[in-house]
Amino acid sequence: MQNKIKVAILGFGNIGKHAVGAVQASPDMQLVGIVQPVADLDSSGLSLARHYNLVESIDQLSEVDVALLCIPTRAVQQTALQLLAQGINTVDSFDIHGELADLRIELDKVARANNSVAVISAGWDPGTDSMVRCMFEFMVPRGITYTNFGPGMSMGHTVAAKSIPGVDNALSMTIPAGTGIHRRMVYVQLKPEADFNEVANAIKKDAYFAKDETIVTQVDDVSKLLDMGHAVNMERKGVSGITHNQLLSYSMKINNPALTSQIMIASARASMKQKPGAYTMIQIPIIDYIYGNENDIIRTMV
Amino acid sequence: MQNKIKVAILGFGNIGKHAVGAVQASPDMQLVGIVQPVADLDSSGLSLARHYNLVESIDQLSEVDVALLCIPTRAVQQTALQLLAQGINTVDSFDIHGELADLRIELDKVARANNSVAVISAGWDPGTDSMVRCMFEFMVPRGITYTNFGPGMSMGHTVAAKSIPGVDNALSMTIPAGTGIHRRMVYVQLKPEADFNEVANAIKKDAYFAKDETIVTQVDDVSKLLDMGHAVNMERKGVSGITHNQLLSYSMKINNPALTSQIMIASARASMKQKPGAYTMIQIPIIDYIYGNENDIIRTMV
Repeated sequence: MQNKIKVAILGFGNIGKHAVGAVQASPDMQLVGIVQPVADLDSSGLSLARHYNLVESIDQLSEVDVALLCIPTRAVQQTALQLLAQGINTVDSFDIHGELADLRIELDKVARANNSVAVISAGWDPGTDSMVRCMFEFMVPRGITYTNFGPGMSMGHTVAAKSIPGVDNALSMTIPAGTGIHRRMVYVQLKPEADFNEVANAIKKDAYFAKDETIVTQVDDVSKLLDMGHAVNMERKGVSGITHNQLLSYSMKINNPALTSQIMIASARASMKQKPGAYTMIQIPIIDYIYGNENDIIRTMV
Repeated sequence: MQNKIKVAILGFGNIGKHAVGAVQASPDMQLVGIVQPVADLDSSGLSLARHYNLVESIDQLSEVDVALLCIPTRAVQQTALQLLAQGINTVDSFDIHGELADLRIELDKVARANNSVAVISAGWDPGTDSMVRCMFEFMVPRGITYTNFGPGMSMGHTVAAKSIPGVDNALSMTIPAGTGIHRRMVYVQLKPEADFNEVANAIKKDAYFAKDETIVTQVDDVSKLLDMGHAVNMERKGVSGITHNQLLSYSMKINNPALTSQIMIASARASMKQKPGAYTMIQIPIIDYIYGNENDIIRTMV
């Protein structure tokens, strides 16, 4: 029996909380600690975290193989660099598509120098969607892939809507309109003095919303609308060799933080099997993400 | 500019013919020859092959990096062992699920000893379907995956139907009935003396058909029904962490030999990037199958 992989959860928001169950459901892993200052925990976080080894700093944990960075994307780079320099593997779900290639190059140097492994952007998009997009590319090298998101809550658009003056609380839902085009359904709860039309116009002019059809609706209580479900439908039509009209499709309807944390757990497992360096999910063999013996997996799943 | 990958096509049936277009559409590859005795070519094969370097044995080709084994599954092991021993990479679409794990172990020894690489079972099932099945497994580790095939022609069932006494020609279509259950629609063209009811009963009792709903229909000319389209729908419902009802789905509607040969081409490319040994598709990073520069692929596709 090999030793279990020692996992620490850094950050205890939605993804961190879901990661607890995912680590515990993995026969090859053990949760060595949750790293989060008590002052930053909400009530549900506090009632869950107190059953585990809750610490303020990862340095208080004696042995960590992999740290799951369940923290805001903007905090990933600095935190990962520190941990990789200590020889601790990191897994993040960094989600800015335009910046992840450079992040990987940056982390790669430090990981190689310190005998550690980073798996970056290990969520569903970027992440498993990227894996499927790349499979579609080599199966059907000419053609168009459309990634249609939703229905589901967009974190980025919700934060943007909340920042508009007069908005007390907001929710921006992403609605797929086909061929990679999306409608934004924005639900706003207003401050007492706010004018709905002014708020709605300000949202529609915001850079996050200006390019998409955006419909703003006033509600009394945004919190009653919140739901962690999300969805994706990816479609490709194109050419294999010289043969046209090859049709590929991938879709999912999932609880967002539950899937993200599960993918991070699988990536934590894969990190233990890679040479030092930083990787996106497409750079790691699929078999490395799966629990079990190599030949058994090939025998039963290929 | 790096040298192009020198590809030989062994066997010139449906997959071999489609492989020609797939090699030529790949900017990093060149077709160095088609290996097939002229006597074994059909008329369409002859008219296509004569535009290329057609030889009877691979030994007549001076330089080959990768051989695409577009030959019957039962001929793969012996042919691959010979080529791997000569230091030539091989790619096959060996399709017997229950035997591929042992085939890999067998080829792996010879490939390692001779500094060559084999990618085995590089088709769509086993192959890319296996990659998606394995992704579904690590995304949603508990649950059931159903692989639903068709509508499309089953080679194995068609051969079985043709071997029934009284059958002149036959076609067995696989029709998905959901949850991995399939109906067999068998179209038979009878010999003059044959009795339809006897033939139909013999087909239904055959081991290939006995477990499935099988409907046999008599037709005048099977050749008028032939079509290379096929389809797959794969579904998984299960649990990520402790969260139930995670729904994943993958489907495609494709020209079968066109997709198979394209996947073999991608695997030929990937073979050039692996250490000596034999691999199933899940053991190779997805990025290795794609044409282009690593950082460009990450920047544009992840």
